[in-house]
Amino acid sequence: MKILCTKNNLLSGINIVLKAVPTRTTLNILECILIDTRSGEIKLTANDMELGIETIIEGEVSDKGLIAINAKIFSEIIRRLPEGDVEISTDDSFNVNIKCGKAKFNISGRDGSEFSFLPNVEKERSIYISQFSLKEIVRQTLFSINENDNNKIMTGELFKIIGNRLRVAALDGHRIAIRELELKEDFGEMEVIVPGKTLGEISKILTGGLEDIVKIYFTRNHIVFEFDKTTVVSRLIEGQYFSVEKMVSSDYSTKLKINKKELFSCIERASLLVEVDKKPIVMNIEGSTLKMDIVSSMGSMEENLEINKEGNDIVIGFNPKFFIDALKVIDDEEISIYLSGAKHPCVIKDDDNSYNYVILPVSF
Amino acid sequence: MKILCTKNNLLSGINIVLKAVPTRTTLNILECILIDTRSGEIKLTANDMELGIETIIEGEVSDKGLIAINAKIFSEIIRRLPEGDVEISTDDSFNVNIKCGKAKFNISGRDGSEFSFLPNVEKERSIYISQFSLKEIVRQTLFSINENDNNKIMTGELFKIIGNRLRVAALDGHRIAIRELELKEDFGEMEVIVPGKTLGEISKILTGGLEDIVKIYFTRNHIVFEFDKTTVVSRLIEGQYFSVEKMVSSDYSTKLKINKKELFSCIERASLLVEVDKKPIVMNIEGSTLKMDIVSSMGSMEENLEINKEGNDIVIGFNPKFFIDALKVIDDEEISIYLSGAKHPCVIKDDDNSYNYVILPVSF
Repeated sequence: MKILCTKNNLLSGINIVLKAVPTRTTLNILECILIDTRSGEIKLTANDMELGIETIIEGEVSDKGLIAINAKIFSEIIRRLPEGDVEISTDDSFNVNIKCGKAKFNISGRDGSEFSFLPNVEKERSIYISQFSLKEIVRQTLFSINENDNNKIMTGELFKIIGNRLRVAALDGHRIAIRELELKEDFGEMEVIVPGKTLGEISKILTGGLEDIVKIYFTRNHIVFEFDKTTVVSRLIEGQYFSVEKMVSSDYSTKLKINKKELFSCIERASLLVEVDKKPIVMNIEGSTLKMDIVSSMGSMEENLEINKEGNDIVIGFNPKFFIDALKVIDDEEISIYLSGAKHPCVIKDDDNSYNYVILPVSF
Repeated sequence: MKILCTKNNLLSGINIVLKAVPTRTTLNILECILIDTRSGEIKLTANDMELGIETIIEGEVSDKGLIAINAKIFSEIIRRLPEGDVEISTDDSFNVNIKCGKAKFNISGRDGSEFSFLPNVEKERSIYISQFSLKEIVRQTLFSINENDNNKIMTGELFKIIGNRLRVAALDGHRIAIRELELKEDFGEMEVIVPGKTLGEISKILTGGLEDIVKIYFTRNHIVFEFDKTTVVSRLIEGQYFSVEKMVSSDYSTKLKINKKELFSCIERASLLVEVDKKPIVMNIEGSTLKMDIVSSMGSMEENLEINKEGNDIVIGFNPKFFIDALKVIDDEEISIYLSGAKHPCVIKDDDNSYNYVILPVSF
């Protein structure tokens, strides 16, 4: 095999597929990046058996073939090359020669045909969304998954489509994050659980352009994301996701509107005092005031925020982290909070239902 | 005590003195920042008994006094306050009230008169240099100190003045970094050892302006830096520094000129292969070529760099880190390297002697 491409093209491609190289594995070949030029294009692939990424980079193929190269060594060498054209050539013993400017490297590769290629999935049913929307929706929900492997389903996110609406949900037992998005076309019905790791890695690769499109295919066991010159294939998590609809009650006894930024910085200040004692923050909602009144071993804090309230007065406690996480990803200047008692979940949502953040209270 | 100042002024002041708050101490009062307004100005002080910093911030003092407040809690509270004016008031039981906008904090302070004030040093003999020069000279030498406490002198830097030249040197047993600077006035002779920690912390505080002046006072046991509204007092390290002049031989059998950037990136690439085996990099200097020829368990690399050589051919080995560290802080496009045999130190220096980097070779 022999190829010629710019250092920068090669490095961008390597950085994309690196996201699918496992950090620990018993299958040595998976620690490699595959360069496959049999089709006449330069295709890089990495695959950790749950998540696989391939990307095509620009360059010339003067001798077709395939080779697997240790991802860590390969990426480090390419990163440190001078700017310019890189020539990579291999021989029958899988020796890899890398030339760029005055620098010449020689390292051992492995037989590319031993590599675990990406599964060939049927690409039938698909939706289109912008890179921007996908990146945003993941940012706005992913913090709510439970990374603990005890409940596999909680490590993933629900992607549910009904007609022309995509709903993405994540939950960890203490809170739920739900975002909804309108699709350009009607898709019918579909529900899958996508590993959180897949979504996190994809977010890092997406350039996030409003005009750049991601095509998402759904199959029984896989989800496929196609964008730019890159294809990401991920296994789905098996099982039935929780009925999040039932957890988001539309009943409430108190509704309040409040400036998001003021509430956010007030909770940040309050959390400073309560975090040492691992106490909840207590919100005292009375008339047109939300009173935060904190006493801890470090000292005390008091702050009154103006609110617009409908319904009953209420005193309720929360883990400040869950509020901070949700408020961080809400862009609205003013938010609505729905409460139905000190032991019932609190819901932060907008009128369009484009977002729903449910937070369980803590007794105090 | 009662003061009023902006959050931003207060936070800047806190961030400056925080550098002298010890991370671990048996003297609890040293974990505090002292606010001293007895003179009518707001002065913040922190002191770890080796390094002390005080800075004056703008603001109004309506009730003079002094209070010590736990630095960690105080800085965290101020950081999280909204933008605006901060009022701090204390009572006779050392309770501290902090008010800003709608937020009110109450924490316990300590009797400020128990604080370890900065030593009162005689400010007689001083030099002036620009903040830029001091920050640069520290950056260009500090990496060469030995942080290991076994030899206290090596944890500091030599500040030596002869006439109107300031020489700053650091060494760790494997290398020496020396920078020289011309002073505006003749100072006579003076030699002190300044703790590396002091210099590192000062570098972080200096804004680094070319027009901003630092006044440096020397006393028998202390060095004092005065700049902007800040005074830094540091103990000196006792003892006699090494005679670095003797270590920088002016004899050589080979002198070569080489493009700094090319050499730097070549060594970076080579170090990738040798670091796993902890081998030295070997430079083969022959005719008008510097040949880097590396073979390690990871693979091999070969690169030939053009040089301008006077004197003998030579083959010599180095720890790549020491070369990389020195080349990083040299701004010249072309550098001169002086060698006098495979077992003798290599010297990188310019014609003005404004810098001298001495690196011991490694046998291979």
